[in-house]
Amino acid sequence: MPETPLNVAVIGAGYWGPNLARNFHGSTDWRLRAICDLDTERAGRLAASAGGVPVLSSVEELLLDPELDAVAIATPARTHHLIATAALAAGKHVLVEKPLADALVLGEQMVQMAEDAGLILMADHTYCYTPAVLKIRELVAAGELGEILFIDSVRINLGLIQPDVDVFWDLAPHDLSILDFILPGGLKPARVSAHGSDPVGAGTACVGHLVLELETGAMAHIHVNWLSPTKIRQLVIGGSRRTLVWDDLNPQQRLSIYDRGVNLSRDTGEDERSASNISYRLGDTWSPALPEHEALAAMVTEFAASIRTGRPSLTSGSAGVRVLSVLEAATQSQKTGTPVRLLPTRELESAS
Amino acid sequence: MPETPLNVAVIGAGYWGPNLARNFHGSTDWRLRAICDLDTERAGRLAASAGGVPVLSSVEELLLDPELDAVAIATPARTHHLIATAALAAGKHVLVEKPLADALVLGEQMVQMAEDAGLILMADHTYCYTPAVLKIRELVAAGELGEILFIDSVRINLGLIQPDVDVFWDLAPHDLSILDFILPGGLKPARVSAHGSDPVGAGTACVGHLVLELETGAMAHIHVNWLSPTKIRQLVIGGSRRTLVWDDLNPQQRLSIYDRGVNLSRDTGEDERSASNISYRLGDTWSPALPEHEALAAMVTEFAASIRTGRPSLTSGSAGVRVLSVLEAATQSQKTGTPVRLLPTRELESAS
Amino acid sequence: MPETPLNVAVIGAGYWGPNLARNFHGSTDWRLRAICDLDTERAGRLAASAGGVPVLSSVEELLLDPELDAVAIATPARTHHLIATAALAAGKHVLVEKPLADALVLGEQMVQMAEDAGLILMADHTYCYTPAVLKIRELVAAGELGEILFIDSVRINLGLIQPDVDVFWDLAPHDLSILDFILPGGLKPARVSAHGSDPVGAGTACVGHLVLELETGAMAHIHVNWLSPTKIRQLVIGGSRRTLVWDDLNPQQRLSIYDRGVNLSRDTGEDERSASNISYRLGDTWSPALPEHEALAAMVTEFAASIRTGRPSLTSGSAGVRVLSVLEAATQSQKTGTPVRLLPTRELESAS
Amino acid sequence: MPETPLNVAVIGAGYWGPNLARNFHGSTDWRLRAICDLDTERAGRLAASAGGVPVLSSVEELLLDPELDAVAIATPARTHHLIATAALAAGKHVLVEKPLADALVLGEQMVQMAEDAGLILMADHTYCYTPAVLKIRELVAAGELGEILFIDSVRINLGLIQPDVDVFWDLAPHDLSILDFILPGGLKPARVSAHGSDPVGAGTACVGHLVLELETGAMAHIHVNWLSPTKIRQLVIGGSRRTLVWDDLNPQQRLSIYDRGVNLSRDTGEDERSASNISYRLGDTWSPALPEHEALAAMVTEFAASIRTGRPSLTSGSAGVRVLSVLEAATQSQKTGTPVRLLPTRELESAS
Repeated sequence: MPETPLNVAVIGAGYWGPNLARNFHGSTDWRLRAICDLDTERAGRLAASAGGVPVLSSVEELLLDPELDAVAIATPARTHHLIATAALAAGKHVLVEKPLADALVLGEQMVQMAEDAGLILMADHTYCYTPAVLKIRELVAAGELGEILFIDSVRINLGLIQPDVDVFWDLAPHDLSILDFILPGGLKPARVSAHGSDPVGAGTACVGHLVLELETGAMAHIHVNWLSPTKIRQLVIGGSRRTLVWDDLNPQQRLSIYDRGVNLSRDTGEDERSASNISYRLGDTWSPALPEHEALAAMVTEFAASIRTGRPSLTSGSAGVRVLSVLEAATQSQKTGTPVRLLPTRELESAS
Repeated sequence: MPETPLNVAVIGAGYWGPNLARNFHGSTDWRLRAICDLDTERAGRLAASAGGVPVLSSVEELLLDPELDAVAIATPARTHHLIATAALAAGKHVLVEKPLADALVLGEQMVQMAEDAGLILMADHTYCYTPAVLKIRELVAAGELGEILFIDSVRINLGLIQPDVDVFWDLAPHDLSILDFILPGGLKPARVSAHGSDPVGAGTACVGHLVLELETGAMAHIHVNWLSPTKIRQLVIGGSRRTLVWDDLNPQQRLSIYDRGVNLSRDTGEDERSASNISYRLGDTWSPALPEHEALAAMVTEFAASIRTGRPSLTSGSAGVRVLSVLEAATQSQKTGTPVRLLPTRELESAS
Repeated sequence: MPETPLNVAVIGAGYWGPNLARNFHGSTDWRLRAICDLDTERAGRLAASAGGVPVLSSVEELLLDPELDAVAIATPARTHHLIATAALAAGKHVLVEKPLADALVLGEQMVQMAEDAGLILMADHTYCYTPAVLKIRELVAAGELGEILFIDSVRINLGLIQPDVDVFWDLAPHDLSILDFILPGGLKPARVSAHGSDPVGAGTACVGHLVLELETGAMAHIHVNWLSPTKIRQLVIGGSRRTLVWDDLNPQQRLSIYDRGVNLSRDTGEDERSASNISYRLGDTWSPALPEHEALAAMVTEFAASIRTGRPSLTSGSAGVRVLSVLEAATQSQKTGTPVRLLPTRELESAS
Repeated sequence: MPETPLNVAVIGAGYWGPNLARNFHGSTDWRLRAICDLDTERAGRLAASAGGVPVLSSVEELLLDPELDAVAIATPARTHHLIATAALAAGKHVLVEKPLADALVLGEQMVQMAEDAGLILMADHTYCYTPAVLKIRELVAAGELGEILFIDSVRINLGLIQPDVDVFWDLAPHDLSILDFILPGGLKPARVSAHGSDPVGAGTACVGHLVLELETGAMAHIHVNWLSPTKIRQLVIGGSRRTLVWDDLNPQQRLSIYDRGVNLSRDTGEDERSASNISYRLGDTWSPALPEHEALAAMVTEFAASIRTGRPSLTSGSAGVRVLSVLEAATQSQKTGTPVRLLPTRELESAS
């Protein structure tokens, strides 16, 4: 017997809200109940295309609706905390567009509040629900890559320079949320170094390099760039057994897994390591077939599933907090010019 | 009337020496006069293939030859200083395989000594003489790219892990010598940050990211990696007018020049910068035809030309010193975990 | 002063009709007046998404509407002739999805009938209105490629095997309509050879090679294939001055123009030609920036323009007839195993 | 115990001879005994680089040498028959550069003569000994691709236009010899159609399309072209189980095997076939690692092995004859403009 659909409202009818509304409208898990935006005209257009649902301009009024189970927040980042805490206070489950908030401490408060209220707080880390990233997570978890030796993520293109956000806060949440999703235990770097530059005088960093020293000793590097005339979205995960390359712009071969690499015999009786212990492996390359589905459809399904079972969603509020902690460290590292050591974020997975 | 060929000996018959010997042997500017190596057997094989020239095992003996104009040193880096200074002391012009020396101070001594003696000291920065790099230098000098906004260089592949040299000293000299060659005024970064990791326990960094803050404010990033199963050799130079991509592994389109980018109107009367001043340009892409020649052939021609005219060679000893200064800063930055400020290297271009 | 929009109805709400309806609905040149389909339910869904226009199930009834200026036919090919002639008889301008008809003689009748009635008959050769093909047409017309020496078009992918149409009739209309559009004077091959095979026992050719001997002596080859696991859509036009490659699946460089080729000096006084008159040219490659627009939007604009001015549209009914004449020849060539000589199709450009 | 090397002479010191000489010289199976060329100066240069072997200008004199076991013929095609039959008459085993002869009947004579004399006649189909083609042969033989459904081979580039040979005879021997090597039972098409054109007035076909109807009903297509500014060397073999793509210019992924395709259920009880029996399979892609070896080294090893064991070599004279029979049919098809039916070539595999 199918379960009764949950009622959800989308707050924010700008760039991202229509995608959320379309997917909630198309899901059997959900009943889209309202669109909420100060600009009621664009809210109205969105509502018309999504089944003709009601339009509201007031979040307060929306949250008074006792039938409403959840809200999806697609407003500017600086408003996430205010709206999310109001929704949680009203007993609603909350999905928040990335980044979770515009400051780490605010994100932590949101997670704590959801935990205390026994509500789901989910981060809309959409990329994590693409077929490619789900497959990468599965391969890493199954040990197919072995230990992770290095990570390199490149996300560059001509991009919209924004005066109030730098290239790290604009683009790196994608890479960071993906790393958090695929690394066993989540993304918990020991130290973060960020190098940004603003060569066009835009008033904010337009080119950025982020170096994360992972707990395991491996290094992850992320290149984000608004000024590149060529578009690259590529992630390389070098492992002790195999290395994976995800080329998101190559639809004919998005994932390639190379059975090549360096072998190091570690069972030497002596303490010293030498080049003689190192050998190379040149094996096959393999490109798994990927199912075709829209990431957002899988995401709204996961939101419903976590509400119904009470378990944290795959991209929980805590995942959003881990991403924020790296972004804040990146901002700090740029100011001081030195690596920033991260404190462990509080683990709140049990309830959020 | 063709000039009398200059006499040259190649010291070191290992990996690189045969390439030098072959090109000197095939050049009308040069007469290959001897091969010198402690291992006289391999020296003999090389000599036989290069016209049957004499073989010597002693550098001292070689340098006694009054007819010898120059030597080309292709021995391990730690021996460069000793051999080069002996050759300069004997009045011979000197070509040295990269890196110029294994320490900055030694390289500086070599440059000073050549200057004092009025001899040519040239760094064998072979890549600089490829058709692609010569073209890039020409385009940058002609202002075709405008101001340089960012640089990204990637040189990754499965590589031979060496116990006594890290991935920066092994691979980055290529990238650094190229940047030195194409940047007007040479490579003179204000600060250098290096992030290396040794995830396979090889005893030395196998994955490295180098960030150079150029004097102009632009940032250059270099990724060197011995553990990558895919081979990439790519350089991107983002400019205010155009952006250039050099893909050395794409013989059908090595150079691409994109007439795309971000325009920022700087003539605003007000102090503040805003997004409204930024616009995008989407123009054509252009890939210049490149002449075909072997880089080393052009290099030995340049060595002869600089000797004959007394001008510094295009890749002078001072260029080698600038590369060394970045490599040493990278080593220091890895130790301290902080960016390292570079002192200007002494300018000795006039005579070397 | 903007002109009064023309009234149009879309006949057929299946696969292609919605694309037409959306573009007519979004055009200032047009007012979408009705959707007509025997299946009124799917017609209703389409009508709702396109401004809530009326739905009809009868073409006869539709054509009685005196306000209706034109119809767009997106029904199965075997019904095109019947519907188009009824529409022309009712004094409506007609746009027909490719192929124009399922037999050459029927297409010729349609063209004749439109000519006699002074109405526009246009073939929906959508590809011709893509930015890439419009640019190719412009380059060819301007003589940038010189004389056309050879053409090679490849359109392969896993495709839907259809019992009642072979791979030539399914896929080659795209290639043929493009060639007709870009060749000065249209596509008028002297002879056509077709080689088809049905290796999976589908009952119809699934792999096809089509060879066209152009009037100029150049040869055009088209490879269509439903069984290829890799997707390729590529057109090469070799010219005496330059060669153009259109790779439709490479959004970063769809068009490349190579200034390379063979030069033949023809001004020799002697009659004989020899290898000594041939030389090679290795010049730059150039990739023009393309504007971004939807092809169908440009196509409906062209339909309106040709109605208003009375000139034949860029992809006129006669263009559709030329495509049909090659398809029929291909079918005949497969049966006989020999090349088929084409009779010139009657030129009706003046009025259609 | 290693076997005594066989003695071989290379006849022809032009373009290809040096490659043969170098590989015979470097093989433990062979002792290079002489270089024979009318141009004794270039023969001398080649001999010097290959161990200083004797130089002869007369084939007759060469064949008098009783120690000589075999000759390798790398002279122009029109001389192959004369030299090969002289060598066979003198009791020498013979390796012949492609094409085996310049006429089918001459090639057949050579095979017959070798058979009668109990000598090895081998075709130098070098590509067959590349790691990629050896792997393809192995995969086809193991049934990994299933039944072969279609073949498409493209070999295009700017090429040297030759007055006395067309593009089919120049380039297609490569494709044909590869197909002969990998098809079980060799290449035995039922019919051959060839379409050539000479758009630059070179006096010979410069662009060619060859269509082979295989015995199994599958169709093979070969595109050869001297006028293409882009270089492509690609072979696609579509199979009922998997499809293989060999891209010889992509060193990082030369072979790709796609587990995708069309499934047709053939166990229907009824006679009619319908679309409902067809389904699609979208599986993984796999790229096998290939060993690295020089093809010619494997080829000279095979020559020695077939002489020692008396078995036909993998690329026997009969293979060369099958290639010739297609080339002659192609020439005939171009003249008549119709497909040419091939007679089975006599099977002489047992002894040659």
